[in-house]
Amino acid sequence: MDDDVLRRGKPTCHVEFDEATALLAGDAMQSLAFQILAEHRLAEDPQSQLQMIQLFAVACGSRGMAGGQAIDLDAVGTSLTLPELENMHIHKTGALIRASVLLGARCGRALDAPSLGNLDRYAKCVGLAFQVVDDILDEESDSSTLGKTAGKDRQAGKPTYTSLMGVADAKRFAAELLAEARDALAAFDSRADRLRELADFIVRRDR
Amino acid sequence: MDDDVLRRGKPTCHVEFDEATALLAGDAMQSLAFQILAEHRLAEDPQSQLQMIQLFAVACGSRGMAGGQAIDLDAVGTSLTLPELENMHIHKTGALIRASVLLGARCGRALDAPSLGNLDRYAKCVGLAFQVVDDILDEESDSSTLGKTAGKDRQAGKPTYTSLMGVADAKRFAAELLAEARDALAAFDSRADRLRELADFIVRRDR
Repeated sequence: MDDDVLRRGKPTCHVEFDEATALLAGDAMQSLAFQILAEHRLAEDPQSQLQMIQLFAVACGSRGMAGGQAIDLDAVGTSLTLPELENMHIHKTGALIRASVLLGARCGRALDAPSLGNLDRYAKCVGLAFQVVDDILDEESDSSTLGKTAGKDRQAGKPTYTSLMGVADAKRFAAELLAEARDALAAFDSRADRLRELADFIVRRDR
Repeated sequence: MDDDVLRRGKPTCHVEFDEATALLAGDAMQSLAFQILAEHRLAEDPQSQLQMIQLFAVACGSRGMAGGQAIDLDAVGTSLTLPELENMHIHKTGALIRASVLLGARCGRALDAPSLGNLDRYAKCVGLAFQVVDDILDEESDSSTLGKTAGKDRQAGKPTYTSLMGVADAKRFAAELLAEARDALAAFDSRADRLRELADFIVRRDR
């Protein structure tokens, strides 16, 4: 599915082993996530925990990550508009980033609806910013800094933010998304600092 | 993962579309199964439903289907003993067949532990019988009757019940498994007739 041969400077699973093994490892880890969500006491009551599992299942499935990956497959070699590109990323990587944030917020005594809404807005912005920055790094960085293969999206003819907007506008867009992500956390106290740091890190990283 | 080009006389998903699409469809459907288990009221209480999800997650993961598939990948071109072959099938296809039977038994007001134990024994036998009969059909039938490619396991050098036991002994083994599956249902009344029919069908089918 992914043509990276390096991640964090190490060979990716499908290179170190083979593609079938890499796919199976992903399947096994996704099942493990569901197992953990069902096995441990995470929420105040079992019914809330069922809702967490439902949220995660939707994020993984045809209306989430799997659907986004299908859009991606379909898009190779074609040209997407900016809204189409955004739609792909919101599903392919954004759905699980949102789910990660929202599942944390629903653990224990769940937050109220406005707080959940703000965290959802934060996660949407961070998820999209992650992808915009990924495209910028793919365009500007070299493989040794990046720890994965640079320039591969351009070579594969994949639509990216940098190919659609140019690098300068893509950087402005990433900065806007970071500002909106931080704005969504405005009502939270210092307990949200880790989320603020995470947003900063995602936009300012060089790999 | 699977090299069948036909199923029930129709092109398989990876032939009709492509392998990546077939894998994604599987991923999406598995997520949908978790979604349904979490979304609908299936058991008497939410805690029981969490246990159902846990059971299903284990059956899908490294200790179930994904683990069995990994054993299978590892076994191509090697020779397995009969216990090793059984271990592979118990995980690869057996785990989900068992989960299907046990999830049904846990819906609504769950059955008592001895009844669940008997259904588990039934499901283990039926799951293994399914695989033994599959190997016999792959060896004896032609592709047009089978609705999928005959002889492919032998060609691929995969270990099978027929290659390890011979066809005659494999048929006797399938008959024994059917008898044990029916025996496991002995304490159930006519409400288990569909399970009895299913066991008969699995062993007596010609495709």
